Amino acid sequence: MTQPFPAPATSRLERGRQALAAIDGEAGHRVVAALADIAPDFATYLLEFPFGDIYSRPGLDLRSREIATIAALAAMGNAAPQLKVHIEAGLNVGLTRAEIVEILMQMAVYAGFPAALNGLFAAKDVFARAPDTASPTPAP
Amino acid sequence: MTQPFPAPATSRLERGRQALAAIDGEAGHRVVAALADIAPDFATYLLEFPFGDIYSRPGLDLRSREIATIAALAAMGNAAPQLKVHIEAGLNVGLTRAEIVEILMQMAVYAGFPAALNGLFAAKDVFARAPDTASPTPAP
Amino acid sequence: MTQPFPAPATSRLERGRQALAAIDGEAGHRVVAALADIAPDFATYLLEFPFGDIYSRPGLDLRSREIATIAALAAMGNAAPQLKVHIEAGLNVGLTRAEIVEILMQMAVYAGFPAALNGLFAAKDVFARAPDTASPTPAP
Amino acid sequence: MTQPFPAPATSRLERGRQALAAIDGEAGHRVVAALADIAPDFATYLLEFPFGDIYSRPGLDLRSREIATIAALAAMGNAAPQLKVHIEAGLNVGLTRAEIVEILMQMAVYAGFPAALNGLFAAKDVFARAPDTASPTPAP
Amino acid sequence: MTQPFPAPATSRLERGRQALAAIDGEAGHRVVAALADIAPDFATYLLEFPFGDIYSRPGLDLRSREIATIAALAAMGNAAPQLKVHIEAGLNVGLTRAEIVEILMQMAVYAGFPAALNGLFAAKDVFARAPDTASPTPAP
Amino acid sequence: MTQPFPAPATSRLERGRQALAAIDGEAGHRVVAALADIAPDFATYLLEFPFGDIYSRPGLDLRSREIATIAALAAMGNAAPQLKVHIEAGLNVGLTRAEIVEILMQMAVYAGFPAALNGLFAAKDVFARAPDTASPTPAP
Repeated sequence: MTQPFPAPATSRLERGRQALAAIDGEAGHRVVAALADIAPDFATYLLEFPFGDIYSRPGLDLRSREIATIAALAAMGNAAPQLKVHIEAGLNVGLTRAEIVEILMQMAVYAGFPAALNGLFAAKDVFARAPDTASPTPAP
Repeated sequence: MTQPFPAPATSRLERGRQALAAIDGEAGHRVVAALADIAPDFATYLLEFPFGDIYSRPGLDLRSREIATIAALAAMGNAAPQLKVHIEAGLNVGLTRAEIVEILMQMAVYAGFPAALNGLFAAKDVFARAPDTASPTPAP
Repeated sequence: MTQPFPAPATSRLERGRQALAAIDGEAGHRVVAALADIAPDFATYLLEFPFGDIYSRPGLDLRSREIATIAALAAMGNAAPQLKVHIEAGLNVGLTRAEIVEILMQMAVYAGFPAALNGLFAAKDVFARAPDTASPTPAP
Repeated sequence: MTQPFPAPATSRLERGRQALAAIDGEAGHRVVAALADIAPDFATYLLEFPFGDIYSRPGLDLRSREIATIAALAAMGNAAPQLKVHIEAGLNVGLTRAEIVEILMQMAVYAGFPAALNGLFAAKDVFARAPDTASPTPAP
Repeated sequence: MTQPFPAPATSRLERGRQALAAIDGEAGHRVVAALADIAPDFATYLLEFPFGDIYSRPGLDLRSREIATIAALAAMGNAAPQLKVHIEAGLNVGLTRAEIVEILMQMAVYAGFPAALNGLFAAKDVFARAPDTASPTPAP
Repeated sequence: MTQPFPAPATSRLERGRQALAAIDGEAGHRVVAALADIAPDFATYLLEFPFGDIYSRPGLDLRSREIATIAALAAMGNAAPQLKVHIEAGLNVGLTRAEIVEILMQMAVYAGFPAALNGLFAAKDVFARAPDTASPTPAP
């Protein structure tokens, strides 16, 4: 999977906006919007550092990046809203539902069965909301 | 990457032994050996459940599984020995050093800069010990 | 308290089913059922490893095992649903309400007052739902 | 900021009551009241140790103490109700809304963006409930 | 096991001293001594609250309290020195080595295999240092 | 305390360099240097986001920012090297040894006694290495 993000000439903010849109979709926009009246600068940082800097790096494809993020958030077990956003993001960048379930089950080994269970139930919620296109069109 | 592990007829323990050898290599054997005089049954469980059950499942390739494990252990930040074992395991199953560095840097976003730094310094230790031959020949 | 679970001849799955029923009761069945449409294999693992392997071991009585589980889940503080299941399980295997409260208060020392408070409020919820038979019939 | 709490002659419990009232206000009383029917002794410990012993010490002003508490609870990310209580407490002891937002944004560096985001959304809830006196009258 | 600690007339500090000596033995004294030149008041709090208040409560026997502490510290995985102190404390109050190993293995279910492994290796260290006289009279 | 960092015209990287030097001093340089052969881009991000963006913001003085950081790292309990760097940084920006000890003792309330103890022993190490001249001349 080639990395679809713009050349270095683009500003970090603009690159971050494009990456956020491609990866998190609507859920990402909602987070940014929710920050507007409490910490608008933090929305800028969120676009610039995680998305403009990290996710835009060419050294690792987005599918692999989302595997890492889903695993980390499920293992830490204290960021349920973000885990759901990234389960959806995983589908957006080409992970199948079955693969996401595999990642979450594997977390039982490293973070315990409760972390895996809570991750699986988060996935169940996300899958129930989204039409099961079964991720046939790897995106972006 | 096809999954190299045996048919379901094989016992979980034997399947686990083969998966452990393929993934963790020497480091895995040392863990099993170190358990012999304190909790030998736990060595059996370790072979059976994580390796015989989870890593042997066909639904996710080993490279993806190690991305998930490295990310989770770096993010939790409280399992330094196991993180090192799995950085080495990542190399064993085909991740490049550069990709492992990408995964660890990304953890700054989800678990903070200290977690990423400690992960990167763990990788530095592992890379310094191992000859850099791991990456060019994706294994197993 | 003698361990009521079957001889080694029984399959891990069957042994796990019996242990789950004895320990977690209805709450355990609900978890297994909830996994059916998202990760049925994980329900099998849950029965086999925690219940068929670990809780079925003769080396520690179930009352002691539930003390350990309640303490761990309250201290980690990121698995509220499982903590409630195991507060109920503690009552099922013979812990009194007062003993469960002692365990949770003690967690203030090791994981801080918020962890203890959230554990105590979880217990308050569980106790409110269950008739106060005050655990007069230690089970199983 | 001088420390308003009584002389050492006062009992720890009484000193704790006064400190709790000054710092946590109504929210503190609600926690104590909620413990009455499940663990009344724990309410006593909560008044005595955190408030009667620690917050009453003269070596650090209350504004600094609340910075430490808000940062810690946001970073751990597993004690949402207590974080909200202490965001309100921060306002009570003289932190401005803008300063609390700074503390929470900074947690992105040490505990990751999800911890910071969840902290900021907790602050948004607290600020929405409280009239914006913008902390013009530093208290106590 | 009856609770060996003094009547309520004793001061919390004195009660704490006796409880610390009975539970943690030499390791507890070393912690208190190490605090003398950095935070002597904290040594007092440590004696008073955990030991004078919590461990001295009659509602739960010391063997059960140490099960809870060992489980919590192993599960959190970020307090290795304290885990070792309490593995030794567990032996002091009547847990057998085999029982401690059971508790630690069980943590694989709730906090993952690395937490269990690190706990087991901590126990291996403690057992290697102490003559195996603790376990001969399995208690209670 | 006024914020000593340059005007917005300065690049994030340069602003970060100046902030890192003022706050972390030598310890900060060592971290950046240690990244050179494993993840040089991460050294850049470390300078740019935490130091160039966050610590350079005018909305909170550096003394308050270091209180937050010390509290967070002690509470999380899984980043010992970074905690030591920031205890030293706290001294650099004007916290006294006694104030740092207060912050760490307070963490017993929110993250448990082991987290506070490990934080205090980290401070003891840092204080033993540095001549006690740090506190009298608040910096920067």
